[in-house]
Amino acid sequence: MNVTVRGRTRHFRTVTFDRAQNAVRLIEQRLLPHEFKIVSTKNYRETAAAIRDMVVRGAGAIGATAAYGLAQGALAFRGNDLKKFSTHIENIYQVLKNARPTAVDPVNAMNDVRREMARGKTVEEKKSLALAAAEEFASEDVQYCEEIGRHGAKLIRNGMKILTHCNAGWLAFVDIGTATAPLYAAQSQGKNFHVFCDETRPRSQGATLTAWELAQQKISHQIIADNAAGHLMQRGEIDLVIVGSDRTLGRTGEVANKIGTYTKAVLAARHKIPFYVAIPLSTIDWNLKSGLKIPIEERSESEVLGAWGIVEKRKAEGGKSKFAGRAFIRIANPASGARNPGFDVTLAELITGIITPVGIFKPQELWKRRRELGFAS
Amino acid sequence: MNVTVRGRTRHFRTVTFDRAQNAVRLIEQRLLPHEFKIVSTKNYRETAAAIRDMVVRGAGAIGATAAYGLAQGALAFRGNDLKKFSTHIENIYQVLKNARPTAVDPVNAMNDVRREMARGKTVEEKKSLALAAAEEFASEDVQYCEEIGRHGAKLIRNGMKILTHCNAGWLAFVDIGTATAPLYAAQSQGKNFHVFCDETRPRSQGATLTAWELAQQKISHQIIADNAAGHLMQRGEIDLVIVGSDRTLGRTGEVANKIGTYTKAVLAARHKIPFYVAIPLSTIDWNLKSGLKIPIEERSESEVLGAWGIVEKRKAEGGKSKFAGRAFIRIANPASGARNPGFDVTLAELITGIITPVGIFKPQELWKRRRELGFAS
Repeated sequence: MNVTVRGRTRHFRTVTFDRAQNAVRLIEQRLLPHEFKIVSTKNYRETAAAIRDMVVRGAGAIGATAAYGLAQGALAFRGNDLKKFSTHIENIYQVLKNARPTAVDPVNAMNDVRREMARGKTVEEKKSLALAAAEEFASEDVQYCEEIGRHGAKLIRNGMKILTHCNAGWLAFVDIGTATAPLYAAQSQGKNFHVFCDETRPRSQGATLTAWELAQQKISHQIIADNAAGHLMQRGEIDLVIVGSDRTLGRTGEVANKIGTYTKAVLAARHKIPFYVAIPLSTIDWNLKSGLKIPIEERSESEVLGAWGIVEKRKAEGGKSKFAGRAFIRIANPASGARNPGFDVTLAELITGIITPVGIFKPQELWKRRRELGFAS
Repeated sequence: MNVTVRGRTRHFRTVTFDRAQNAVRLIEQRLLPHEFKIVSTKNYRETAAAIRDMVVRGAGAIGATAAYGLAQGALAFRGNDLKKFSTHIENIYQVLKNARPTAVDPVNAMNDVRREMARGKTVEEKKSLALAAAEEFASEDVQYCEEIGRHGAKLIRNGMKILTHCNAGWLAFVDIGTATAPLYAAQSQGKNFHVFCDETRPRSQGATLTAWELAQQKISHQIIADNAAGHLMQRGEIDLVIVGSDRTLGRTGEVANKIGTYTKAVLAARHKIPFYVAIPLSTIDWNLKSGLKIPIEERSESEVLGAWGIVEKRKAEGGKSKFAGRAFIRIANPASGARNPGFDVTLAELITGIITPVGIFKPQELWKRRRELGFAS
């Protein structure tokens, strides 16, 4: 999508491959929204480190990064020995997989690349096939998001006020994003609308990443505290909710997504506001039979007890802040601990529809439509 | 309530009067939870400044502070001229009232003091009556909170997990608090329970003030992001919700309170979890006929776009924070704005009961019970 740097607007993807330098080029997401910077990883180890250290995050984005990382490692191989090459690839695969051991996207993406490579007979052929497969994975990621946008944009009418939660935006994918795709598509169709971005504590991805994306795309938006959505719905100020999904149960239509999603779904149901979940097909779990069986990651207490940001030089309430720069502040009482569940599960009955690359479905219909939706077991 | 300073535990009130120094002594709330400090105001102008600058906040606390401030000003008067004294008092009244022009508590408290002073025939008599009336206002504030605690403690059973929102604690009153009163009373009865404190963005009063209070009183508690309550309720981890109220409509039972209260009430209703509101009688509005007519204050955008805290010396994600000290950080995208409604309105149908100093009532019963509840128009 577009990014304006020093007055100049250019198109960027979250992840791209620089063939000349054999480098993966990534938007350094940890610096956003305060600084926009592209980093290049010189080898697969640096690419793995970028995944591990959250330079890049988001399902599609880390999938594509791992796919490119595997191709990058393959291209760096010297010689024609197929056996040595195979050992080399296996080693790279493990290093990239271990960068985010619980994530499923890098593994799926690298399996695609390995499958393609198997068709090659020589090291050189395998190298070419690896890069082509990684490029194909990235292109498909973009294409799926475009299709989500095409279907989802139909839900958006002129003058609507739309609520988002967390970031399922282009920064989480190779481009366009899932929950943001209908917004970008509707904008390109000339529709006018306003977006309320939930701040999304504790990590504030709404206030930082989604708000940054929308600002770059010049979409009218405001950030709200997570506490404010209920009030805005009560006063008729929200017409539509679109969120992303970390895991969608194909058998039940339940959705696991960032903590707070469930709360917004309950509020939307009470106010009869349509609540949609935009998903890439890769997040559908066809096996699990109950959302209550999805393990909910308990994250670090410190996320709740404080926040990252840029220290502003301004008068404090009862003091002055004298510093400027990126910092973590402790907000909470020092002697108090925190509970920090990272995700929650939203029941199908609260979800108006699931926006997929192949169409919008009732959550309860996913199983019936499973062939269409890529069910493969 | 108790505060432990350098290993020594002592009892403090939020607001007290130092007769020897003719000073109002206040807990400097802007430094909490990071520093505990008592400040003394030397004259009524300093007392007004303490109200204006939020050294002291909360309904009962600013009421008592204004009452003491009026007495303090009266006691500082030199001479016996009744007419000059009267002008002097009127001036003080206006200065204290204008410190927080929209707050009703300072006005009500000072009207009590003036009513008592009117009974005096000489300046000296009026001075004594002023101080006695201010002391009486503060004592009654404590007594009302104790009675809320006595009634509310009956709702708390051993092993319960209780959710709170914002701070309607002893720091907001002269002592004990309203929403916290049942907790302190249940603790003194030997009951064991655990409290989840909603962080309460954007101003984080739950993470700072309520968590500090509970830690000082050694009540088991954890802070949660405002997004987490829905998940905890879904998993059966919350048994009871108790919140405070800024304004309670006597005719409808609707409650205006800190933004996010409504959301917690909707979630509690969905999960059939009892939702109680603890109120001093002074917050009941017997006139307004609909909660939708309560003006909702739109507060500064900067509260949503950032946060106050203590800068920690630790490694940043993508950098280092080099500073230590109190500071405001900007969290959000710099080019994005915010909506920041300060309060919301919870419908009576979502409220299990209103805990008052004279008993617990269904919100719909308030009007029927209005004589008991101090209706006086």
